[in-house]
Amino acid sequence: MKLVVANDYQEMSELAASLLLSYMLRPQRVNLAITAGSTPKRMYELLAPRVKGHAEFANAHYYNFDEIPYAGRSGYGVTMENLHRMFFGPAAIPERQLHVLNSDNYLQHDRRIAEDGGLDAIVMGVGADGHFCGNLPGTTAFEDRTCRVPVSARPDLADILLKEVGGRTEWLPDHYVTLGPASVMAAKKLVLLVNGSHKADILRRIVSGPVESGVPASILMLHPDLLIIADREAAALLP
Amino acid sequence: MKLVVANDYQEMSELAASLLLSYMLRPQRVNLAITAGSTPKRMYELLAPRVKGHAEFANAHYYNFDEIPYAGRSGYGVTMENLHRMFFGPAAIPERQLHVLNSDNYLQHDRRIAEDGGLDAIVMGVGADGHFCGNLPGTTAFEDRTCRVPVSARPDLADILLKEVGGRTEWLPDHYVTLGPASVMAAKKLVLLVNGSHKADILRRIVSGPVESGVPASILMLHPDLLIIADREAAALLP
Amino acid sequence: MKLVVANDYQEMSELAASLLLSYMLRPQRVNLAITAGSTPKRMYELLAPRVKGHAEFANAHYYNFDEIPYAGRSGYGVTMENLHRMFFGPAAIPERQLHVLNSDNYLQHDRRIAEDGGLDAIVMGVGADGHFCGNLPGTTAFEDRTCRVPVSARPDLADILLKEVGGRTEWLPDHYVTLGPASVMAAKKLVLLVNGSHKADILRRIVSGPVESGVPASILMLHPDLLIIADREAAALLP
Amino acid sequence: MKLVVANDYQEMSELAASLLLSYMLRPQRVNLAITAGSTPKRMYELLAPRVKGHAEFANAHYYNFDEIPYAGRSGYGVTMENLHRMFFGPAAIPERQLHVLNSDNYLQHDRRIAEDGGLDAIVMGVGADGHFCGNLPGTTAFEDRTCRVPVSARPDLADILLKEVGGRTEWLPDHYVTLGPASVMAAKKLVLLVNGSHKADILRRIVSGPVESGVPASILMLHPDLLIIADREAAALLP
Repeated sequence: MKLVVANDYQEMSELAASLLLSYMLRPQRVNLAITAGSTPKRMYELLAPRVKGHAEFANAHYYNFDEIPYAGRSGYGVTMENLHRMFFGPAAIPERQLHVLNSDNYLQHDRRIAEDGGLDAIVMGVGADGHFCGNLPGTTAFEDRTCRVPVSARPDLADILLKEVGGRTEWLPDHYVTLGPASVMAAKKLVLLVNGSHKADILRRIVSGPVESGVPASILMLHPDLLIIADREAAALLP
Repeated sequence: MKLVVANDYQEMSELAASLLLSYMLRPQRVNLAITAGSTPKRMYELLAPRVKGHAEFANAHYYNFDEIPYAGRSGYGVTMENLHRMFFGPAAIPERQLHVLNSDNYLQHDRRIAEDGGLDAIVMGVGADGHFCGNLPGTTAFEDRTCRVPVSARPDLADILLKEVGGRTEWLPDHYVTLGPASVMAAKKLVLLVNGSHKADILRRIVSGPVESGVPASILMLHPDLLIIADREAAALLP
Repeated sequence: MKLVVANDYQEMSELAASLLLSYMLRPQRVNLAITAGSTPKRMYELLAPRVKGHAEFANAHYYNFDEIPYAGRSGYGVTMENLHRMFFGPAAIPERQLHVLNSDNYLQHDRRIAEDGGLDAIVMGVGADGHFCGNLPGTTAFEDRTCRVPVSARPDLADILLKEVGGRTEWLPDHYVTLGPASVMAAKKLVLLVNGSHKADILRRIVSGPVESGVPASILMLHPDLLIIADREAAALLP
Repeated sequence: MKLVVANDYQEMSELAASLLLSYMLRPQRVNLAITAGSTPKRMYELLAPRVKGHAEFANAHYYNFDEIPYAGRSGYGVTMENLHRMFFGPAAIPERQLHVLNSDNYLQHDRRIAEDGGLDAIVMGVGADGHFCGNLPGTTAFEDRTCRVPVSARPDLADILLKEVGGRTEWLPDHYVTLGPASVMAAKKLVLLVNGSHKADILRRIVSGPVESGVPASILMLHPDLLIIADREAAALLP
């Protein structure tokens, strides 16, 4: 594990964008799974203008690592919709570089990724509860690969999903799909972005251990190439 | 994870030797941590004559991943002694390529390995109880790095160590040292050798999960580049 | 560059097979370009039974690096025909793992390989004249990528190609296609197999330099990960 | 090869700094050979404050790839002096991370680098005459490794070296040392920085070929992982 502490959100975003750029500039196909959510917002703002319309980024391929479908609606779910709004749209990434995970194909997702050469990097955030991707405490086990999590997995999951679909009950799905911990750990590099004082306690728990299923992200410390980019506030409680 | 099933012990040993050779033939320094014990015996017999006296293997460096000291004796402990007898001696590996872990330097071991470029591969066996390296159930936690395990860690540890030092109570040590699970997971590639019907049940548990501290080797399934080489007997209970 | 000298053809073949196996056992897709011709015959005999029917080799993908079409015949040319007879057939490699280079698609070949993640390794022989793949002296330049070589490129090329198509003038093609030196150098690892006393002089010239267009294989010394596996006879003139 | 065109010198420098940062943030030792001269000035200004005093960059090791000694003066030569002024000083890199090439140790340099694990990346510029590192046209051959170039190698070399030592004849050396083309090509990644309209013609010649000894940098196109970062002016003549 390597930890780098940035002064603030802007610097964390610059570092994360630098790292993604270095991957995108490899000579051959590179497979990236990138995060939606609020954490990477600035990172995508920095990346999009540099990537848009530049042919040298044509062999960067993108994979979403979770998806919350809208009940009764076809097309993208919450994650891909967000990624489109934040990055794929502004950066004008062609469809051929997008590899969508959804409720229909999740059982093939791990095999498809291996067939494509594996994920070169996953860039993700972490929740104050220790979740990463869709691995909320109590929903998946460390050994799980890409899987379907039913709304019944946790008593409060319906409420969580309802927020994700904008509070509209007609869109509330009965499940979501996510790379499980084992699928995430199979990537060649993991990058964890952590910012804000409300993340300080979980970052401390991740870094100090123990590895325990109640803190899903604690498993990430065992990946041979994990980079944590934290801002000063998030790093405040580290030893 | 990738699993390859060999017909028997000889074929397993040939595959393992092939893999080690491919690492040793890299153009620059390569850092290998290799196992003592009975499992790799034939592998070393195959490797030693091919390596001995050949200059092209001069940038392969070796690290032992655990050590049981002999109480009241200086010099190598049980592991390095075995590695010398099985491989370093017959292959005539010069001292400069050997990087010894022992009770005096274990606190620096992880940093030294990182400074040397990290371990490119660890080749290890697994016990019927799920232990790997010196990570016996109940002695280390998943988040542990290279550490000292006192004989008091488990009630039966004195008996286990006594067997390792040849049953001579005057040599019974009060501890051993080992790469912890986190140090093992930090290597770039892991190779697990498993042979014999008495390993069939533990191999099934490792491959099928769950990841649990009672089965230390279950964590290895989460490494992004784990290769298991099993013989047919050990693989008999796999789905 | 790393050079390993085997005692004889059998040992050279075993080492080469070991190396290919280590690539095939990677956890994700691996792209290999492998040679036809007489040199690898024994290597394929060793590999085929180990690969045949084993699911763990399903993510090894194969690319031929040159092709001599049969004039007036559809289907495979000389190279793919040989590879089928020597390896793809005996090893029962499914079509989905074969990526054919031919006269129709050679202009897309480099881009297709990059899109597939690049070649992880090329295993090839060298001619006594210093040619590798279809890069005969006088036919291609170091900077050439995958290209079409017309029979007019050298006065003796028609004779050479006639032998390749079994001496039947009705099959004599007016060109062949090959990865150029620049495409070969773009692979992540190069393995050069050299055996027999008739190769001793060219091996000496490759290893000692100079890099010159008259000895196409002299350029290979500049690849950052070149492994030469020679037998004792071929290595006889090395310093 | 991959080419990225930046709008201007500032953006080129940012991209180059990003790339170097991504290497420095690897979990284990990383070996970098970096360039002196005017091209990287802004890159180092961006890097130094980010690196200075940050423990997470302690496993980045630096190697100079050429050196012009001052005649009659001990201590650093022109290259290391410049690197100190531009980067090692402002970034406060400890001595233990610096691996100096000079007239005394150049014969051991290649072996030492291989023993340290090889160079992970070389960042360099290119001259309008096609030189890279100390490989001026007519001074070294493609197959040369780290070597000593006597002032007699070219009629105008004394004039060139005189300028490098600040025009003071008492400091004019009778040679310099440099990684030869073969040593540069042995690195795992090459990054070439090219800016300004006076570099447009040489960049066109490098990218379009031919590979020829009169344009030393033309060989770089054959490296499997070459990244060229050019500004718009330098890229003006590219197809």
